[in-house]
Amino acid sequence: MSIKSIQEHLQKNNLHGQIITMSNLFIAQDIRDDENKIKELTNFTGSTALLFVTQKNAYLFVDGRYILQAKKETNPKLIELILQDDEAFCSLSKTLKKLYKNSSATILYNPWEISEQTKLFLQKELPNINFSSVPNPSYNLTQTIAKTFTHQKKFTGLSTNEKLTFVLNYMKQQKIDNYLITSPANASWLLNMRSNALKHSPVFRAYVLINKTGTCKVFANSTNYTKALPLEALEDTLKNTPKLATDYRTTPSIIIDFAPSIQNYKDPIENLKSIKNPTELKGFEQAHIRDGVAVTKFLYWLSKNYSQKTELDIAQKLTSLRQEEKNYYSDSFNTISAFGANGAIVHYAPTPKNNLTLKKGSLLLLDSGAQYYDGTTDITRTISIGKPTEDMKQNYTLVLKSHISLATAVFPEGTSGEKLDILARNSLLQHNLNYAHGTGHGVGHFSNVHEGPFRISINSNSNIPLQKGMVTSIEPGYYKENHYGIRIENLYQIIKYQKTPYLTFKALTLVPFDKNLILKDLLTNEEIDYINTYHQQVFNNLKKYLSRLELDWLKDKTSPI
Amino acid sequence: MSIKSIQEHLQKNNLHGQIITMSNLFIAQDIRDDENKIKELTNFTGSTALLFVTQKNAYLFVDGRYILQAKKETNPKLIELILQDDEAFCSLSKTLKKLYKNSSATILYNPWEISEQTKLFLQKELPNINFSSVPNPSYNLTQTIAKTFTHQKKFTGLSTNEKLTFVLNYMKQQKIDNYLITSPANASWLLNMRSNALKHSPVFRAYVLINKTGTCKVFANSTNYTKALPLEALEDTLKNTPKLATDYRTTPSIIIDFAPSIQNYKDPIENLKSIKNPTELKGFEQAHIRDGVAVTKFLYWLSKNYSQKTELDIAQKLTSLRQEEKNYYSDSFNTISAFGANGAIVHYAPTPKNNLTLKKGSLLLLDSGAQYYDGTTDITRTISIGKPTEDMKQNYTLVLKSHISLATAVFPEGTSGEKLDILARNSLLQHNLNYAHGTGHGVGHFSNVHEGPFRISINSNSNIPLQKGMVTSIEPGYYKENHYGIRIENLYQIIKYQKTPYLTFKALTLVPFDKNLILKDLLTNEEIDYINTYHQQVFNNLKKYLSRLELDWLKDKTSPI
Repeated sequence: MSIKSIQEHLQKNNLHGQIITMSNLFIAQDIRDDENKIKELTNFTGSTALLFVTQKNAYLFVDGRYILQAKKETNPKLIELILQDDEAFCSLSKTLKKLYKNSSATILYNPWEISEQTKLFLQKELPNINFSSVPNPSYNLTQTIAKTFTHQKKFTGLSTNEKLTFVLNYMKQQKIDNYLITSPANASWLLNMRSNALKHSPVFRAYVLINKTGTCKVFANSTNYTKALPLEALEDTLKNTPKLATDYRTTPSIIIDFAPSIQNYKDPIENLKSIKNPTELKGFEQAHIRDGVAVTKFLYWLSKNYSQKTELDIAQKLTSLRQEEKNYYSDSFNTISAFGANGAIVHYAPTPKNNLTLKKGSLLLLDSGAQYYDGTTDITRTISIGKPTEDMKQNYTLVLKSHISLATAVFPEGTSGEKLDILARNSLLQHNLNYAHGTGHGVGHFSNVHEGPFRISINSNSNIPLQKGMVTSIEPGYYKENHYGIRIENLYQIIKYQKTPYLTFKALTLVPFDKNLILKDLLTNEEIDYINTYHQQVFNNLKKYLSRLELDWLKDKTSPI
Repeated sequence: MSIKSIQEHLQKNNLHGQIITMSNLFIAQDIRDDENKIKELTNFTGSTALLFVTQKNAYLFVDGRYILQAKKETNPKLIELILQDDEAFCSLSKTLKKLYKNSSATILYNPWEISEQTKLFLQKELPNINFSSVPNPSYNLTQTIAKTFTHQKKFTGLSTNEKLTFVLNYMKQQKIDNYLITSPANASWLLNMRSNALKHSPVFRAYVLINKTGTCKVFANSTNYTKALPLEALEDTLKNTPKLATDYRTTPSIIIDFAPSIQNYKDPIENLKSIKNPTELKGFEQAHIRDGVAVTKFLYWLSKNYSQKTELDIAQKLTSLRQEEKNYYSDSFNTISAFGANGAIVHYAPTPKNNLTLKKGSLLLLDSGAQYYDGTTDITRTISIGKPTEDMKQNYTLVLKSHISLATAVFPEGTSGEKLDILARNSLLQHNLNYAHGTGHGVGHFSNVHEGPFRISINSNSNIPLQKGMVTSIEPGYYKENHYGIRIENLYQIIKYQKTPYLTFKALTLVPFDKNLILKDLLTNEEIDYINTYHQQVFNNLKKYLSRLELDWLKDKTSPI
């Protein structure tokens, strides 16, 4: 398939355009490389984008993190880049409104790839457009057979039956007899199952149909799970299932064609799994000690060995150190090892083609994480290689202040992330600095490293409160195009604030900040105390697991500023 | 009318309850004392509450500002107080759900007093309840004839015709032929008219029916405006008006009975009038200089004369000093002059009954403002009388830090007030202090001192962005029950931040903070700079208008800390 072949098909059939997404039947989930149609069509390697092809043009919608990367990777003669000022489908809708202002149009989409919610949104926004299914839609799943495995109760804390009780209660309250789970992360959580289908997310890609009696039918293809029904059985099964509900946000619109009376009810697992249980929280803590050890060993190694190393060397070394830790399963995403100007490409990933060699006088932005059976990690450190400039130090310190400002926030129960973002962003804006991405995301437990339902972002307007037991990242940044990038990211557990009715953050991540980049004069006494206390905590938690040389190094890196 | 007579009527007719609001046909507008049914029934004198009477009980819903006051004023044998945890009608709906969980009920309401939006909300939330109109509903308007007058163009900046153009454009876009304005503040803005119907808000209480040709029909009773049609003409007029729209939020549900095909469209004036034009902004600035002079003269007088003075003496003196200023029309609300423990009653107003005499060793909380023809003011200062305790100083300084934190915020265009509130609240929450009210409200121009559409509040979830040209209060506080209250309030204009794409606040209010209450050790250098710069600005703007003794006093009060 090529953009050209799509355009020829549109021309031949007198159609106006075709929407191509970066998903298959698992709508809100990562896909495999061999399932990535947008990469195939455009060469763009980022993890999220939306493509709209017309008879003569092609528009690729990417967000602020990816715009520089997309510029480098795509052919400007073939593809016009559009910076999303909103969610992808909102931006698409705005573009479609401009393109087809006063005329009707017929636009193709794949009903396996677009959620019912998105379809309803587009139909409502664009009443003059006829959205029509591609002929014989298929769900574009890999042929590779994934290995599935049980996620043990010593890690999950709750059995499937215990988890099922919550869901059945919800179904009873809502008077639903049958509920179809279409989110793989939610299915994995409920079944306590995982698989190796994806490189960085261990989710088991399946649908689960739950009956009010507690029986569950699992639907999955391309796995070795023999108890699963084939996806082809979905249509007939759903057709004959009464009082059925699903979550339109993650359910392909074709499912609604299978069972037109299927109701839209929020998947209760989304919220249930976001509030981690004590076993999961203990696991997160333990995993972060091991991850802190691996990253600290790496930083020590880097301080001695950066000369002649490339971004890829660095990413490989970091992965190899994590692999030595107990309960390591995989990295939790493709390591962003971005040196110098590459750091300004927010979600840059090195490839043999663009791979830079480190040299003195700039910054290394390293965003990485791992899946451990007992918890998932995600950390960004910005590291000076050689002597940093005053400009780098000033901007690093401002990003660190921004991070601390949010990390020390105290807020009432019921506060959503949208209402906290300004604590991080405000101090940067005062210096006319900003970052074109959100400030925090939920983190799954041995699951997706980006997990809902909440996020911390100034742009969105969701009303999901942060709750005790959730795990979130805090990751403000600053990106100086063609020069360097700075981002400082820790994961935090949300806890009660002392003996008050309020909430605050407790750091899970245990790795020192780069003191070479801190301008103490820009910090308040409270900020200095925060850094020193955090560094002390890093040292105390990691000291048992380091060699003598590593320990001496860490002692110096965590000594008071 | 008494609660008892309502209950007898309910019993006799086998009805379950009756809703009584604090409004008449001008739903979101203040009312006159002689129109206040809730005060008549309960003795509660606060400016907002909702009453629900059943055959045996009566429930008064009040918000956090009023709970202590309501406790003092109402009879606990007759009335159960309910602290709203939400908007009044949301709290009512929760209570009704509890009272009539498994049964149907018939509840009376006055369709002149409840907006269509509220009626639809209640019907949706409570499908088992039959909401039924009281027999022969009347709109409960005073018989007193109000004097109307033109608000001159030198103050408004725009003529009615110019303003009408915006509204007609909106009607054209939305394909509306006739639009009924039911908000008095919006009618007043459009007509450039005001009246003396209310003590503190100079709005002309009228409905305006706008035709797409630009002709306007004005409906009003109890005014000397002879061109107005009587309100009794509404029913027949609306019945025969095609393609009609109104804003369900401010339109009594009875209007929808008059014209069932009337559509719900947002009143465009709400947003138009919130963005002040250059003439209005200049007026706000000038009015605040005069207001600053009056309040400063008052503070000088107080420093010499507080002995033996009561809260009422103080309020009267302040009003008399404002009356001497050019363009003064009235106070913009009932002055909150609250000494000592009265200060902890958030919206306390002194009466001859509870009037305290000032004595050394506590705090005076003084929240006041004025309507000038060129602008409206609203300021709160907390003033130490005699020597304050360390506890008072500490908490005052924390509230001041909270105020400064928001006042110096820099934020992207499109940010709503809900996303900024945490900047003020966070620093208090870290000390387990909080305040049970919002942080900021819009301010009308020679109109309602509380004006929409935006507000700054952690609880709400509205998406109204703060825009350049809006005027808002910032007013964090802390209230120590039975001891004292602290609130620090300035008005701010929203402006562009330097040469960036961001927004920030510019102070309009010009009155010094109480340096006796500031603990410099708790402040950062930036906060100290902010206070000194602000005080310098106060001094420079007011110095021309003060006597020699007042000037010496102000020089001392604004000298650097």
